[in-house]
Amino acid sequence: MMDKNRWYGLAIALFGFMPLAWTQSLVGFSALNQSKEQELEKQFLELPKSETFKNHLRELTREPHLAGSPANVRVADYMEKSMRQAGFKVERPPYDIYLPTGPGEIALELVTPVRMPLNIKEFVLEEDPFSKDPNTQPGWNSYSGNGDATAEVVYANYGTKEDFEQLAKLGVSVKGKIVIARYGGNFRGYKAKYAQAAGAAGLIIYTDPEDSGYMKGLAYPEGKMFSESTIQRGSILTLDYTGDPLTPFEPALPLDGPQKVARLKPEEVKGFHSIPVTPIGYGAAKEILGRMSGKPVPESWQGGLPFTYRLEGGPKLTVRLKVNQPKGMVRIENVIGTLEGSEFPDEWIILGSHYDAWEFGATDPNSGTAMLLTLADALGEMARQGMRPKRSILIAHWDAEEHGILGSTEWVEQFRDELNRKGIAYFNADGACSGLSFGGAAAPSLKSLLLEATKVVPYPKSQMTVYDHWVEKAPNKLDGPGIGSLGGGSDHLGFYAHIGIPSLSAGMGGPTMYHSAYDNFNWYETVGEPDFVSGPTVAKVMGIMALRMANAEVIPFDLSRYGKDLKLHLGTAEKAIKAYAPDYSAQKMMEKAEVLRQRAEAFHTLLSQKINSKGLKKADLMIVNQTLLSMERAFIDEKGMAYGAWYRSLYASSDPYSGYASWMLPGLQYEASLKSTASLPDLEARYLAAFQRLEDKMNLLNKLLGLVR
Amino acid sequence: MMDKNRWYGLAIALFGFMPLAWTQSLVGFSALNQSKEQELEKQFLELPKSETFKNHLRELTREPHLAGSPANVRVADYMEKSMRQAGFKVERPPYDIYLPTGPGEIALELVTPVRMPLNIKEFVLEEDPFSKDPNTQPGWNSYSGNGDATAEVVYANYGTKEDFEQLAKLGVSVKGKIVIARYGGNFRGYKAKYAQAAGAAGLIIYTDPEDSGYMKGLAYPEGKMFSESTIQRGSILTLDYTGDPLTPFEPALPLDGPQKVARLKPEEVKGFHSIPVTPIGYGAAKEILGRMSGKPVPESWQGGLPFTYRLEGGPKLTVRLKVNQPKGMVRIENVIGTLEGSEFPDEWIILGSHYDAWEFGATDPNSGTAMLLTLADALGEMARQGMRPKRSILIAHWDAEEHGILGSTEWVEQFRDELNRKGIAYFNADGACSGLSFGGAAAPSLKSLLLEATKVVPYPKSQMTVYDHWVEKAPNKLDGPGIGSLGGGSDHLGFYAHIGIPSLSAGMGGPTMYHSAYDNFNWYETVGEPDFVSGPTVAKVMGIMALRMANAEVIPFDLSRYGKDLKLHLGTAEKAIKAYAPDYSAQKMMEKAEVLRQRAEAFHTLLSQKINSKGLKKADLMIVNQTLLSMERAFIDEKGMAYGAWYRSLYASSDPYSGYASWMLPGLQYEASLKSTASLPDLEARYLAAFQRLEDKMNLLNKLLGLVR
Repeated sequence: MMDKNRWYGLAIALFGFMPLAWTQSLVGFSALNQSKEQELEKQFLELPKSETFKNHLRELTREPHLAGSPANVRVADYMEKSMRQAGFKVERPPYDIYLPTGPGEIALELVTPVRMPLNIKEFVLEEDPFSKDPNTQPGWNSYSGNGDATAEVVYANYGTKEDFEQLAKLGVSVKGKIVIARYGGNFRGYKAKYAQAAGAAGLIIYTDPEDSGYMKGLAYPEGKMFSESTIQRGSILTLDYTGDPLTPFEPALPLDGPQKVARLKPEEVKGFHSIPVTPIGYGAAKEILGRMSGKPVPESWQGGLPFTYRLEGGPKLTVRLKVNQPKGMVRIENVIGTLEGSEFPDEWIILGSHYDAWEFGATDPNSGTAMLLTLADALGEMARQGMRPKRSILIAHWDAEEHGILGSTEWVEQFRDELNRKGIAYFNADGACSGLSFGGAAAPSLKSLLLEATKVVPYPKSQMTVYDHWVEKAPNKLDGPGIGSLGGGSDHLGFYAHIGIPSLSAGMGGPTMYHSAYDNFNWYETVGEPDFVSGPTVAKVMGIMALRMANAEVIPFDLSRYGKDLKLHLGTAEKAIKAYAPDYSAQKMMEKAEVLRQRAEAFHTLLSQKINSKGLKKADLMIVNQTLLSMERAFIDEKGMAYGAWYRSLYASSDPYSGYASWMLPGLQYEASLKSTASLPDLEARYLAAFQRLEDKMNLLNKLLGLVR
Repeated sequence: MMDKNRWYGLAIALFGFMPLAWTQSLVGFSALNQSKEQELEKQFLELPKSETFKNHLRELTREPHLAGSPANVRVADYMEKSMRQAGFKVERPPYDIYLPTGPGEIALELVTPVRMPLNIKEFVLEEDPFSKDPNTQPGWNSYSGNGDATAEVVYANYGTKEDFEQLAKLGVSVKGKIVIARYGGNFRGYKAKYAQAAGAAGLIIYTDPEDSGYMKGLAYPEGKMFSESTIQRGSILTLDYTGDPLTPFEPALPLDGPQKVARLKPEEVKGFHSIPVTPIGYGAAKEILGRMSGKPVPESWQGGLPFTYRLEGGPKLTVRLKVNQPKGMVRIENVIGTLEGSEFPDEWIILGSHYDAWEFGATDPNSGTAMLLTLADALGEMARQGMRPKRSILIAHWDAEEHGILGSTEWVEQFRDELNRKGIAYFNADGACSGLSFGGAAAPSLKSLLLEATKVVPYPKSQMTVYDHWVEKAPNKLDGPGIGSLGGGSDHLGFYAHIGIPSLSAGMGGPTMYHSAYDNFNWYETVGEPDFVSGPTVAKVMGIMALRMANAEVIPFDLSRYGKDLKLHLGTAEKAIKAYAPDYSAQKMMEKAEVLRQRAEAFHTLLSQKINSKGLKKADLMIVNQTLLSMERAFIDEKGMAYGAWYRSLYASSDPYSGYASWMLPGLQYEASLKSTASLPDLEARYLAAFQRLEDKMNLLNKLLGLVR
């Protein structure tokens, strides 16, 4: 489900120059261990190869493999086999979730002024054998409502909250109309939510050539961009929790399993959309938009089709949209490989990507899957050569992410307690290798790990490192790479926002045939990334990070970033609140953030002094690492967010209005979005308590290290 | 020739809050005279009516009236008759200039892969009777070279200097090719100049729907925007002087007149283009651009046609372009009306607009013409009622502006000495009334006159003044309206940049059918400005300014603006030069500008103290006013600019690389554009000398006023 370029997050924070010490020594490593690690990393960097990645990718993407389909089970079998061969233990925890079983029946046609069925499936292309596969499906939006509407049409731009407000201001009613909106600007589920709230009878979502088609570059098969028949599929689920709709907070364990889970009935779920929703390409959209006759749109609403866009279709243009989408209980399974740590097997570094796809999924998600399998091969080879990681490295392949981040969420809910004890960090790699532009977003404590790893990985076909290339693209090169803050939209969400495991997402991207039948191996091989170099490159970055996390004496979190980033985000929140409540001040929280900054600085100074001390015993390390491992849990707040109690991190969330954007300090941001002050005292108390929990942990660490001789 | 929105200039300067005194008292008026003036202005504001403006506009735009055509003589006759009826003396000074006599023969067609003639004329529209006029001509570019080329094509975006440099960087040769470039980004003549310099065999210029067509709003006849057959005509003359090509610096007096003028032979003129050039609409452009097969363009080069634009057409696509455009000696005439001043008939306030049009010229130029005739009616009526202006007000209708600002330039060259003695200011109104958005650009000394005038004129259909509306649109309302600096592109150029008469341009605009056959009365009446309210509104602003200039005891220039604006522009120039010559400093000139600021402040303080003094005799006033009148001449430099000696103002010029943009301190800007330092010492000496001339005049004024008891 990860949207292209989603790694960057939306709240880009710029990282300053690293202190020189960081470029010379690895944080958390003693001098002796560091030289071993560097030797080991050198050997590791030789292992991931384009050919390996390419072979995995070809095997993974032979068929369309929607969650719940037999083809998807074949993909799971391949991954299990591949990881076992590499030396991983593999488990396949299953869940039964409430899911559409397929697109069902979709009918879309102009009724007047001419009767004309509209195309809802990609063209078959001579050049692309995958496009001829009889198992490809029409474009569809999972969790659409069922219905059959014939009505006039209204154009709603991107269908954001603001767009529907603008329509109302312009005096355009969508009541009883079929809304046509373009992809972009928000998570597609919110287009359905706002259209339905405004009284629409149905919703058609299309990709505009200005956003992803011919105006951006040559269309497939000549180029990488959307052609007129390319359709973005996608879920429109927008509940106030993530995961299986019937089992909020709890794992959707198999219906036929030993442990029974309480389930809602589908009709008890609050927030399913009831109107029919379906996606189309711009060729079909042109037939509707080009026949509209109302007033012209505001200038920023104009797209790239060759006529002036209009707000209303008028009475002479009517469209029929019928969706009958069956839903039921569907078996899904995650595929989890474990390379057990030689010294601390109960401290886990988890890497993951989903593997279920809308169709073939060559970039989204399986470029990430193939990269993870390539990495598993390399780590297995290292282990065979006697370089097994000290901590456990888990490689997880999630199911049913495309329908609403379901597989990973159920797993997090199932193993919440174990993850709390064992989970160090989660690295997400959804569709992570689809082009040559590197980007990443991370929790504060992981930012320096990511930046440092990119400094030792060569950038393909150049003399640069990945870091050099990343800096090159930055808005201001002197500030270093633009590293994002992590929000919603993929499998890190459960780890990060629900249970407080520091997470990151990184990869190499470019334009893709996102969620269409053309996101296949032919696209990848002919126009997408014909050299297959992003796969091994990302595998190296991910591997270096995992190995450093696994082998360091002290888990290499950068604690100093907490204070710095908190101050930045508190400043933003204060400004937003002051705009309507001028007396508001975040001073108290700011002061606490400054204390955190000082404590973290003291910790890093102490750590560099004591890391080589013989007084630092394994027992000390265990306590230090257990404390570090639990650091981010300080942000977990039992009450959760006002817009959804499942969202428990006071630090980070997805945007509850658009789905994709990163919300930092979401409690405060949500209050600001309501222009309310009522909850501010309660929120401040909860934030201060979280900061205090963080400080307590830092104090404990400093005390422990202070005691070391 | 004035491009839409050209009044604003490109170098927008923001005007701060006016000191309160300015809003209470009229500069240059004694208390007694001021109350008379305010009474008179009140009466004046009642006179200009929409109906008058509409009638004039209808009469002026009955036929296509290209310079040199019998129809244009009929327009001149109408203006003469109208101004005589209003009580003006009228003269029609004639010139014989070297001009295309019409579009001649134009052939444009695809040759391969299909033979297809392309449309070069607007569609006939049922809704628009003017479109059926048999005298409308095809689209053409005057001063095109003659030739017949059949060649492959290259797309050159806007055809700017930078665009052709980019093509070369991308390895695309235009040698022997036909270039297709879109309108916008520069004066069209420079597209031809750079295409020819790069070796092109011909040039086709089209209007892209992204810039002026359906992507901006509904197309004519439903809306105001360019339709697929709408063609922008226009001159491509780019010599290094302005005016008749055969008589640089001298008036092109009639061949059969008493006074003979030396003329170049056409073949002696340096800088005529030799390649064929012709304009088309986006319907025809689509046939070419849509068949191209080369590499895709850089993202910013993409326009609004429904496919990815490409750099090259490839060998399978060939286009034929033939232009055979006859040129010869053509008789033109300006029509100059004078309302003689009652007290100072030899001090002239000149208002003008050209009257020659590409076709009917409803907005460009004749909305300005109709406005000036409406103003003449009002001023004549005032005179009949005993309120004749004290200084002379001249209303000038220029011929042949469309081909290169020819009529006004020849007049300035003919009456250079008299204008030096008598010319106070020139107000330009080219196509000044085509919409509801007010804007203006002015010489520093006229900026406050324009701003103050807009404060007493009501904005149509509202409770606001024109000033209020103007502020409303400003980027930052607290800074007041965005008032531009004046550059090239219309008839103020000779007055301002050649002989140093302070000039301004102001009007009310919006989208128009610029230089097309649809710029006609039907467009104006149905979609353009159906209420005809901009005409009388602009007439009021222009009239208030003229009356204040005419009736004040002391010419109401704002001298303080010289120092302020000079410092701003010196800062910009210094920055541009420092970018390649870090040691450069404009300190000396800055200091002189500060002196000018102080002298001007002293003058305005003295003036407000002495204006009501009985010691201020008429003889004193004559000297004060003569000195003020000559103030701007201080910038005139006999050597002229390095890119063209005809451009004599050290203060303002048009941009020699793009034609339209305003260049402030053009001597320094040109040196900066060459990244040269060789001429900086000479330039600094000339600038300091000009500043000294300004200071000398200010010192003289202060001395004179200081002597008044």
